[in-house]
Amino acid sequence: MDSSRLVSRRDLDFLLFEWLDVDALTGRERYADHDRTTLDGVLDVSERLAAEKFAPLAAALDVDEPRIGDDGVVVLLPAVAEALAAYNRAGLPGMSFDAEHGGIQLPFTVQRAASMFFQAASVGVHAYPSLAAGAAHLILTHGTAEQIVTFAEPVVEGRWYGTMCLSEPQAGSSLTDITTRAVRQDDGSYRLTGTKMWISAGDHELGDNIVHLVLAKTPDAPPGVKGLSLFIVPKLLPDADGEPGERNDVALVGLNHKMGFRGTTNTVLNFGEGFATPGGRPGAVGFLVGEEHAGLSSMFTMMNEARIGVGAGAVALGYAGYLHALEYAKNRTQGRPLDAKDPASPPVPIIEHPDVRRMLLAQKAYVEGGLALVLYCARLVDERVTAPEPADRDRAAQLLEVLTPLAKAWPSQWCLVANDLAIQVHGGYGYTREYPVERLYRDNRLNPIHEGTQGIQALDLLGRKMVAGGGAGLAVLAGTITETVVSARKAGGEAADHAAALEAAVARLVEVTGIAWSDGDPAVALANATAYLEAAGHVVVAWLWLQQMLVAEGREGAPYDGKRLAARYFFAYELPRVATLLDLVASRDRTTLDLDVSAL
Amino acid sequence: MDSSRLVSRRDLDFLLFEWLDVDALTGRERYADHDRTTLDGVLDVSERLAAEKFAPLAAALDVDEPRIGDDGVVVLLPAVAEALAAYNRAGLPGMSFDAEHGGIQLPFTVQRAASMFFQAASVGVHAYPSLAAGAAHLILTHGTAEQIVTFAEPVVEGRWYGTMCLSEPQAGSSLTDITTRAVRQDDGSYRLTGTKMWISAGDHELGDNIVHLVLAKTPDAPPGVKGLSLFIVPKLLPDADGEPGERNDVALVGLNHKMGFRGTTNTVLNFGEGFATPGGRPGAVGFLVGEEHAGLSSMFTMMNEARIGVGAGAVALGYAGYLHALEYAKNRTQGRPLDAKDPASPPVPIIEHPDVRRMLLAQKAYVEGGLALVLYCARLVDERVTAPEPADRDRAAQLLEVLTPLAKAWPSQWCLVANDLAIQVHGGYGYTREYPVERLYRDNRLNPIHEGTQGIQALDLLGRKMVAGGGAGLAVLAGTITETVVSARKAGGEAADHAAALEAAVARLVEVTGIAWSDGDPAVALANATAYLEAAGHVVVAWLWLQQMLVAEGREGAPYDGKRLAARYFFAYELPRVATLLDLVASRDRTTLDLDVSAL
Repeated sequence: MDSSRLVSRRDLDFLLFEWLDVDALTGRERYADHDRTTLDGVLDVSERLAAEKFAPLAAALDVDEPRIGDDGVVVLLPAVAEALAAYNRAGLPGMSFDAEHGGIQLPFTVQRAASMFFQAASVGVHAYPSLAAGAAHLILTHGTAEQIVTFAEPVVEGRWYGTMCLSEPQAGSSLTDITTRAVRQDDGSYRLTGTKMWISAGDHELGDNIVHLVLAKTPDAPPGVKGLSLFIVPKLLPDADGEPGERNDVALVGLNHKMGFRGTTNTVLNFGEGFATPGGRPGAVGFLVGEEHAGLSSMFTMMNEARIGVGAGAVALGYAGYLHALEYAKNRTQGRPLDAKDPASPPVPIIEHPDVRRMLLAQKAYVEGGLALVLYCARLVDERVTAPEPADRDRAAQLLEVLTPLAKAWPSQWCLVANDLAIQVHGGYGYTREYPVERLYRDNRLNPIHEGTQGIQALDLLGRKMVAGGGAGLAVLAGTITETVVSARKAGGEAADHAAALEAAVARLVEVTGIAWSDGDPAVALANATAYLEAAGHVVVAWLWLQQMLVAEGREGAPYDGKRLAARYFFAYELPRVATLLDLVASRDRTTLDLDVSAL
Repeated sequence: MDSSRLVSRRDLDFLLFEWLDVDALTGRERYADHDRTTLDGVLDVSERLAAEKFAPLAAALDVDEPRIGDDGVVVLLPAVAEALAAYNRAGLPGMSFDAEHGGIQLPFTVQRAASMFFQAASVGVHAYPSLAAGAAHLILTHGTAEQIVTFAEPVVEGRWYGTMCLSEPQAGSSLTDITTRAVRQDDGSYRLTGTKMWISAGDHELGDNIVHLVLAKTPDAPPGVKGLSLFIVPKLLPDADGEPGERNDVALVGLNHKMGFRGTTNTVLNFGEGFATPGGRPGAVGFLVGEEHAGLSSMFTMMNEARIGVGAGAVALGYAGYLHALEYAKNRTQGRPLDAKDPASPPVPIIEHPDVRRMLLAQKAYVEGGLALVLYCARLVDERVTAPEPADRDRAAQLLEVLTPLAKAWPSQWCLVANDLAIQVHGGYGYTREYPVERLYRDNRLNPIHEGTQGIQALDLLGRKMVAGGGAGLAVLAGTITETVVSARKAGGEAADHAAALEAAVARLVEVTGIAWSDGDPAVALANATAYLEAAGHVVVAWLWLQQMLVAEGREGAPYDGKRLAARYFFAYELPRVATLLDLVASRDRTTLDLDVSAL
């Protein structure tokens, strides 16, 4: 399998080491066991395993998707377990964990980058270890020492898997509406009853056990999200030795059949409505994580990382599609230049046609821009934890809060557009299932929906992040962008032109944020939050393109020429969209607020 | 089956009879056998058959797509033949044909509108009679009397089907590169050899025969598209009585497996490389239609209608998705208003959320705007043929030439966006195959590709239609829009505001057309033709929204309130995009022209 059509390693190296200076992290105590060689090693092994073990599965799983066998057990292609066994043998489940729990204690930025090879190769298979890691992280952060040993460390070792159980059939975006109940027992455990929906990796036989992290309400819970508590609900209850024992009352009710992303089982799970459980009492046995009614804030501890992960997945799928489209456009011959006079002249590779080039450039600008955004955010996660100066840690945390909704939403929108363009470059071939681009598109279509829809990200950005602390987050963002503007102005030439455009766009973004909130009415301020989200995303990515251009300054060849080219494209074709979007937000247009539903 | 989620009949009636005054056509000689009752009757029967016979097939065919059986024959779900038998019994294959050939001789506008019910219900099944009709039309227009009787009339009667065979594996957008050869025989027939690709409805057992219309080159043909000739190549050669007889050498090589639109077989056909044909000479037997080397112009006779048909299909799929999303948003409860204080208050239907309303309004504006565009163009087809004054016929023809690429491309782009938004309104449910919106999206994704890609339409619009006759087409368009601007200004109020915005946009469109071509270099003028296409489409649809608003003036209730609302949305949210796009075209940006491919 050719790994050159997953994510460009050359681009990753440029971003990680020439731009984000990630190897400097190894000078910090937390990452002192690493050096450039070990970081490269993780990237190397990830790229190789993704290409060899994961990539061949993507198309196969799309056709032979997970199903429930006659015995009620999930049937997955056997090659999935083989791929994950190779992943485990390489120690990759420990990528994101501390050494004291058996992990590799890698910088988050590197772990995020390495994971993208797997996401590009088979986003469906990658979801199993990824969701497991998310669950283990929560337990490591908020669980007791015993919970960590019992439930998290088997995940770090790759033996167990895990899930996040938030949504219910009637409650997706609105966690307020969760109805799963948890009743405390005399022994301190809880019994859970309820139905959870859209649970990815919710059931399978890939490991020895599955650790569900479940949001539920205790009987005395206050209304709203403040009443949610977080529970560990294992599929199999650990015995006295910590080994998976008796079956807990977590029943697989059904699998959802999706447009794409089919490699990951997506389940409906019933808690406490199946067979009898130990002691004959109704409910699935659960163990409280942290305090009662603090479940959502616990869950949100990992939200930045989770949302960056979704954005990264969107980038990875878009990136793979771009590389396929680029390859196709170089090799497919058809048509002649617009100014060709002789119809008998031989056809040219379609990459010679301006509109095909536009579609390729747009894809490049979206996927490399999206990659820069998610890695920049990942770098902020590391900075927040390891920067020597508290002020730097605080600043990183503030910037991360503002950028996270963009890191989730911008790639989910634009790298999906990239996949759409990859199909278009292929013409009719791209519409067939013989080429991977249509599947990549279908896989990626999930990303604007899960882990907070685009609309939810928009409310988070304009309703919370941009105005929190009297607009401190926005101020930090604008200040950081201005530093780049100053550098670009000094660099002169094209960079200085871009700096001027960026400076104006940022100023307008700040101004319009104030206008949106000018009378403090959230209904009006947020009525066009989605346009604001889109505008802010384009401003931020334009900024990151300018940074990349500055890093490439004075250097020739790949990837530097490409960075200048895509930056030029982004400033000419993309950034100008922002003005129209911000004008709409500034107009405080009430069309959607005032409409009479019967007119729709 | 509920026909309320295909295309709104109320909207169709508004557009056909309140706006386009289609019943007035029955006052003209060609349509004198019809009156409002017969027109309504065709719409009624089409709506009913589409809902009852076609709609239930869409999801089934998506799963059980056509395949090649062990005997090499195409296997289709039996219900397809049943649905088409009902279609035939209703006389609908004759919808678009003249009475002298057994047709109903309906106004094209009504036939186009009626067909949309079938396109919305099952675009895959509708393609069989639709492609057959296209082939028969070509023969009726350019064939001999004998060819008409032998090959066209069985199609009019619904007994035979037909195809258009243009593309080849190496030649899709570029017909110059066609290599299929046709050699004249002593008896005046031809023998064809070559491979045709992407042939929809290219093989099946639905009728008694299939009439392929094939573009090929004779040995002495001049290079380029001027060397193409058009041939009738029947699957079965008619015997002396005109009945299907001996098998012609047209071999089904394979089926393409598509992302969507799966109900229609999409084939690779080999001509003259299969079994021996009569007389043992190599090649499939073909009959020249019209003159040698005039094939492309014959084929393009029906191009306006064919492209309007593709646009209509895109509208129909978008429309069905919109109606599903609207229904879902009214019934699905989740979340609370942004200014709600009490988290314990009951959840509201999601249609109460501004961002959901925005997504619904956008869909409404796209699908009803697209419907207006395709029906307006269909009305021009009727006007071109039946207007009493030659000057009116000429003017209609000119306007039709300019609008056709937009009628194909604009719905293919924006009604696909509508399908995307319909998924988003459904959240996770929309991403599953249990809901129709993901299939509608997949079906619609073909439309920006076939019958001339978006890029091809852009070249046609800015490279030919807008500049033909010294810009006469653009002048007619601008003049026609200005008439609406004048009316809207007189109407005052909101319409007058929109009129001002539209007037400015049209002026800029005209100006930028000149700027693009300012030095006559097609490479530069057309480098950003796609942005121009998008801008022109938005200007035209804004114009049609303003027209609809004027028709609705002074009237309350459905659909009038909705027309005002969607017009307001379009002018507030959509038309402003145009300025940015036209600025790009006006900049004559050379990024795509000058780039070094190795930098991609």
